[in-house]
Amino acid sequence: MGGAEPTEGPLTADELQLAARNSGMPLEALRYDITPTGLHYLLVHFDIPELDESTWRLEIGGNVERPRSLTLEELRGLPASTMPVTMECAGNGRARLTPRPISQPWLAEAVGTGEWTGTPLRDVLVAAGVRPGTVEIVFSGADHGAQGTVEHDYERSLSVADAMRPEVLLAYEMNGRPLEPEHGAPVRLLVPGWYGMASVKWLTRIAAVIEPFQGYQQAIAYRYQQHTEDPGEGVRRIRVRALMVPPGYPDFLTRRRTVEAGEVVLRGRAWSGDGRVERVEVGVDGAWEDAALEPPIGEFAWRGWRYLWKTAPGDHVLLCRATDAGGNTQPLEQPWNYQGMGNNLVQAVPVTVRDITARSS
Amino acid sequence: MGGAEPTEGPLTADELQLAARNSGMPLEALRYDITPTGLHYLLVHFDIPELDESTWRLEIGGNVERPRSLTLEELRGLPASTMPVTMECAGNGRARLTPRPISQPWLAEAVGTGEWTGTPLRDVLVAAGVRPGTVEIVFSGADHGAQGTVEHDYERSLSVADAMRPEVLLAYEMNGRPLEPEHGAPVRLLVPGWYGMASVKWLTRIAAVIEPFQGYQQAIAYRYQQHTEDPGEGVRRIRVRALMVPPGYPDFLTRRRTVEAGEVVLRGRAWSGDGRVERVEVGVDGAWEDAALEPPIGEFAWRGWRYLWKTAPGDHVLLCRATDAGGNTQPLEQPWNYQGMGNNLVQAVPVTVRDITARSS
Repeated sequence: MGGAEPTEGPLTADELQLAARNSGMPLEALRYDITPTGLHYLLVHFDIPELDESTWRLEIGGNVERPRSLTLEELRGLPASTMPVTMECAGNGRARLTPRPISQPWLAEAVGTGEWTGTPLRDVLVAAGVRPGTVEIVFSGADHGAQGTVEHDYERSLSVADAMRPEVLLAYEMNGRPLEPEHGAPVRLLVPGWYGMASVKWLTRIAAVIEPFQGYQQAIAYRYQQHTEDPGEGVRRIRVRALMVPPGYPDFLTRRRTVEAGEVVLRGRAWSGDGRVERVEVGVDGAWEDAALEPPIGEFAWRGWRYLWKTAPGDHVLLCRATDAGGNTQPLEQPWNYQGMGNNLVQAVPVTVRDITARSS
Repeated sequence: MGGAEPTEGPLTADELQLAARNSGMPLEALRYDITPTGLHYLLVHFDIPELDESTWRLEIGGNVERPRSLTLEELRGLPASTMPVTMECAGNGRARLTPRPISQPWLAEAVGTGEWTGTPLRDVLVAAGVRPGTVEIVFSGADHGAQGTVEHDYERSLSVADAMRPEVLLAYEMNGRPLEPEHGAPVRLLVPGWYGMASVKWLTRIAAVIEPFQGYQQAIAYRYQQHTEDPGEGVRRIRVRALMVPPGYPDFLTRRRTVEAGEVVLRGRAWSGDGRVERVEVGVDGAWEDAALEPPIGEFAWRGWRYLWKTAPGDHVLLCRATDAGGNTQPLEQPWNYQGMGNNLVQAVPVTVRDITARSS
């Protein structure tokens, strides 16, 4: 990923720099069906580029019959769809691994759900006429930098079949407004169900290619490796996960939660890129019970859940765990991989229940 | 601040938790006069509260002739003003101190400039009739938690004279839109020229008091102390500072910058809560020259600057330093205080200039 070996040591200065410029979603924002734009997580590999939408063009080329160069106005003139999509960084949970891979040190907050509007990619590909022999579609962003000594624009590919799925969008609106600079303005790719690395921001070029794409962000980064020589599997769909709104109120520094004794409604969201969430369980001090699921808000969006917790005074650990239609569920022991990808370990929230009655008597 | 002593050791798990939920402004966003809402820095002490604007009331009471309870609609019906205001967290630069105070570990990115709209506070205070004997006005937010073992709502005070200054607003819009939840919706206090702690978010209550306010965020936190027993001076106005857009492109992990040889325009912003910025100097490897200043965009907003750097291949360190009308300038040696407040040390950007011609010959 960047050349630094995973460590059992404390956080490094490089990791702090990344944490200071990337942003997580504070977990109380799980209360919203649709994450307010400024609370959605953000992972920017290089710098946020500055694109002038009046001169911006989307080049569609490579192995196609009719190469095109689309203006923003032309793209906005095509049929569009709008849908809620939960996006999560593939590195979410990385900083909870031991040894800890050195990169953006996410704990659990690299997630958000936007209401995205855009043109289905397949319409644009069909219009361009993808030629026989094409194996992948490559997407290039305007963000430029170096990673692992390789200087490059951020680029990713999808197989033709994945690129042709109807939910994949060329998105130009988020939450009913033109994309903000930090979310990929003026246009980004949106690949619902996949970890965020697939949804290339600041999109400038789409190319049909006849060999598998070997760019840095495809062949080197974003792989489930066990060691640096392991080619590993590419990171794709979002693994099942549930998170809860931490109940009660926090301590500023430790974020330790205090809850008043009584009945407390625990709330949260759960999602999976591999099928609908069909079960969420809440664990209180190791005893698991089912939470109530809210109706889905979309095929590619998180699903709300609630659980009535009858508290007992003292210290407790609250867990939540989701299971999807494919039978995938979250691990209780943390898995490990070299880049810290796809860590969907169950969330644990330590809470102190305070008995007001006892205290005031 | 929270009981932990400053340390010369590595970043702690508590600091990482704070860094993961608070957000800085990536420094390339210094390119914007007005910071896009989602890129403005955010420091939330406790949880972002959820306020229903239809039932929200602003209570104005204490030592006043005519206590009031204003709805949002009533507040929006009062005369309003709009102005660009640069806000900075008092803890910006904290993580560069040695020993390092344990709190939100900002490097240099806790800043942003919004275009804020609201009702001048003084109009509301005059309407309420502040009684003789009042020494301060106390502002209460809806955010609740514990800090340093003290459970409290976030509260700060201003002297009557400071509260009556015409630029102090009860703000309900930022960048032309209703406040986002994370910026204090539906209404926050905005105290231009002061560090961010004064601009109480999620405002619910304003009270005229006849004794100096001794709440946690006033009397304990946000003080320039040398040690924990030192009462120190309260943190008030923003100290002068300049920052630059890091030139060239970054390495993902180290953020080390690479610049192509040639003439490079360095750009940045500079601001001060103590008067207009009158000078910005750029230091290249220790040699200082004046940058060109852009016209001010507002009395309480940052000011743009530019400097034409004639690069030489190799490694360099770029510095920038602002001076305000009061003659205040930035230190080259880092000052220290117990809570890590107001550290306006000059920014240093290490850069490698790459000579394309030499490389390709």
